[in-house]
Amino acid sequence: MDNKLMLMIPGPTPVPEAVLLAMAKHPMGHRTKEFEAIFAECTQDLKWLHQTSHDVLSLAVSGTGAMEAGIINFLSAGDRVLVGDNGKFGERWAEVALAYGLNAEIIKAEWGQPLDSEQFREKLEADTDKQIKAVILVHSETSTGVLNDLETINRHVKAHGEALIMVDAVTSLGATSIPVDEWGIDVVASGSQKAYMMPPGLGFVAVSPKAWVAYKTAKLPRYYLDLGKYSKNAAKNTTPFTPPVNMFFGLQASLQMMKAEGLENVFARHKRLKETTRTAVKALGLPLFAADSAASPAITAVMPPAQLDAQKVRTLMKKRFDIALADGQDHLKGKIFRIGHLGFVCDRDILAAISALEVVLRELGYEGFTPGAGIAAAAKFLAESQS
Amino acid sequence: MDNKLMLMIPGPTPVPEAVLLAMAKHPMGHRTKEFEAIFAECTQDLKWLHQTSHDVLSLAVSGTGAMEAGIINFLSAGDRVLVGDNGKFGERWAEVALAYGLNAEIIKAEWGQPLDSEQFREKLEADTDKQIKAVILVHSETSTGVLNDLETINRHVKAHGEALIMVDAVTSLGATSIPVDEWGIDVVASGSQKAYMMPPGLGFVAVSPKAWVAYKTAKLPRYYLDLGKYSKNAAKNTTPFTPPVNMFFGLQASLQMMKAEGLENVFARHKRLKETTRTAVKALGLPLFAADSAASPAITAVMPPAQLDAQKVRTLMKKRFDIALADGQDHLKGKIFRIGHLGFVCDRDILAAISALEVVLRELGYEGFTPGAGIAAAAKFLAESQS
Repeated sequence: MDNKLMLMIPGPTPVPEAVLLAMAKHPMGHRTKEFEAIFAECTQDLKWLHQTSHDVLSLAVSGTGAMEAGIINFLSAGDRVLVGDNGKFGERWAEVALAYGLNAEIIKAEWGQPLDSEQFREKLEADTDKQIKAVILVHSETSTGVLNDLETINRHVKAHGEALIMVDAVTSLGATSIPVDEWGIDVVASGSQKAYMMPPGLGFVAVSPKAWVAYKTAKLPRYYLDLGKYSKNAAKNTTPFTPPVNMFFGLQASLQMMKAEGLENVFARHKRLKETTRTAVKALGLPLFAADSAASPAITAVMPPAQLDAQKVRTLMKKRFDIALADGQDHLKGKIFRIGHLGFVCDRDILAAISALEVVLRELGYEGFTPGAGIAAAAKFLAESQS
Repeated sequence: MDNKLMLMIPGPTPVPEAVLLAMAKHPMGHRTKEFEAIFAECTQDLKWLHQTSHDVLSLAVSGTGAMEAGIINFLSAGDRVLVGDNGKFGERWAEVALAYGLNAEIIKAEWGQPLDSEQFREKLEADTDKQIKAVILVHSETSTGVLNDLETINRHVKAHGEALIMVDAVTSLGATSIPVDEWGIDVVASGSQKAYMMPPGLGFVAVSPKAWVAYKTAKLPRYYLDLGKYSKNAAKNTTPFTPPVNMFFGLQASLQMMKAEGLENVFARHKRLKETTRTAVKALGLPLFAADSAASPAITAVMPPAQLDAQKVRTLMKKRFDIALADGQDHLKGKIFRIGHLGFVCDRDILAAISALEVVLRELGYEGFTPGAGIAAAAKFLAESQS
C-alpha cells in the first residue's frame, strides 16, 4: 500500500510527525539571534543525551563523516592506533586509518562475535613506552547487531593512560547509556537518522578535554571536518559553515521529545524492544546472529536456517506488509536479515513486525515454530516486563 | 510579524512549499529501488542544470565541503596551484590549499573588484614546464556580489593545457549559465541552499573526465570526501554513505520546478532580478559595491554613504518589514548590506524589497533620493524588459 512504509532497518529510522513538520518550516538565516537560540538549545540537549558537560559538535555529514572527523582531528600520519574490526563499520575505520597513513593494528573478531577485550588489554599493557595514540572501535556494530563491550575495553584504555578512545556510537548513542564524562570517552560519533528520530543529514561528535590537548599537535590535514572550527564557533552558538538549518528545526523537536520521555525511559524502551524481539524470534525457531550477552539494543540480526531464504523473507515482509527489514552486508548479503528497533519505535511496532513475520514464514513454508509462538512469547515477555 | 520572514540573504534562500512538503515525507531506506529511482532522476536533472554529460555528485555537506572535495581529490601535497582571492570565499580556498600543503600562489584583487584575468594569463603563459596543476577560483563571490570572469580565465587555463580549473559556483550555478562541458570546466562546486531553492545540507560537485585522470595519481588523504567513492556508487544510482534522503525528496521537487521553468528562463529571471535591483538601488542614490560589468546575478552589495548606517538599514528592514538582508563579512561587517536575489525569488519580491527600503531610508533620515524614485526606476526597467 502506498505511503504505508514501516521502517525497521537500522537507519533511516521512523521520524515523528512533529519532527517532519518542524523540518518543513521555511528556513531562516543562520547568522541570526533566532537561529543561535535554536542551536544553543540543541547543543545543550545534545550534551544531556551524551551525559557530558564538554563539547558535542554538529556537522552536516553522515555518521561516517562524523567518525572520520573524530579520528583525523586528534592524530598525525604514522601514529600507532588499535582498530577493532568485527563488522562492516569496524572495517571502515580501518580503511580511514589506512587512507590517512596511520599505523593501524587491527584487532579482529568474526562477524557476529564481539571484540575480545583481552586482546585490547594485552596490546595496551605491552605498550610500556606509550606509542599507542588511540583505540578506535564500534560500539553497536550495525552490520551484525553486536554490541561491543565498550565499558571493559575503555577500562583497559584508561589503564594505559595515554591513548585516546574513539567510539563509533552511531547506532548506540540514544539507544543505550554511554556516560561519556563518567567513563572518560574521548570521541563519540553518532548520526541523526538513528536513535535521534531524525532523517539523515547531521552527524555529531563529542570531544573530551583530553582529545583537545591532542588536537593541538595533531597534523592530519582537514578543513571542512576540522572540529576546532566547530568548537570555536559553537562557543558563540554558531557554526563555521552554513548549517542545515531545517535539520536543526527537526533536531530541536526530537531532542525535546527525548527529554520529555526521560533518558532512563528511552534506554529502558530500547532494552525492552530488543528483548521482546529476541524472545519472539527465538520462539519462532530462528537463530539469532549475535549472542544475548553481546546483543545490540538497536538491531537484531537473524540468520535463518538453510531451508529459509532470508532474501525472500525481506521481500515478502515488504510486499505483504510494507515492513522494511535490512539485508546483510558484504558476505552476509542474502544470508541474514536485520530488524532495526531504534529511535521512534514502540512495543506495538515489534508486535506488528513479529505477527507479520509469522505470516511470512508460514507463506514461505517454514514450519520451525508452533503458529502463534512468536506473539505468545512477545506477549508473555511484555506482560512480565510491566510487572 | 511571526512567520512572515522574507529571506533576501545569499543563503539560505526561500524554499517553495512543494519542496518543503516533499522534504516532510517519511524517510525511506536508501538501499532500495524506490530511492535509487529518485536518486537517478536527481542525478540526471543535476547534469541538465550543469549542462554536462559527465559526473555531478551529491554529498551531505555544505558548499564548503563540496568545494574542498573538488580540490583535494585531484591534487597532491606540494602541487603548485593558482588561487584567485577577491573576497571571503577566495580567501577560504587559499586556506584549504594551506591546510593540505599545496604550493598556492594567491592572485588577489580588492574586495568589490573582479579578479584580473590578465594576471592568470601571465602566470599560466610563464609556466612553460607545466608545473601549475590547478587554477582555483570563485565564480560569484558571495561576500561582495562580484562575478568573476570565469569564461576568460578559463580560456587562459585551456591555453595552458595541463592545469585543471576548479570553480566555486556556490552562488552562481543555477543563477547564470555555466556550460560545463562546452567550456571544459573540470570541477564545479555548489550548494543546495542557493539557486537550488532548497534548505542547506547538500553539496554538489561536477567532475570532468580530465579531473578523473588526475584523481588516479592524486595523493591528498580523504575518505568521506573521496569523490571516487561517490562516482562509483552513482553509477549504480546509490551513494557510498547514508544520503540525506529527505533532502533528495526536496531536490527532486526543486529540480522538477526548474525544468518546468526552463534553463534559459531561470537564467533570464536572475538577470532581470539583478538588473531591477541595481537600477532601483542606483535611483535611490545608494552606491553599489560591485561595478555593473562584474555584478553577480545572485547578490547585490550596497555600500551606503557615510551618513547612513548599513547596520541600521538591515535592522529596520527586519523589524518593520520582516525582510532579512545580509551584513558584510569580515572588514565589511556593518559597512555594506547585501541583497540576495537567487533561487525562489520573483519580480514581486524585488518590488517589495525596494519599496520597503524606500520607507526605511526615509525613516533613517536619508534624503539622497526623490520619494518613489526606486520603485519608479524598477517599474520602468520591468516594463521595458517585457517589451
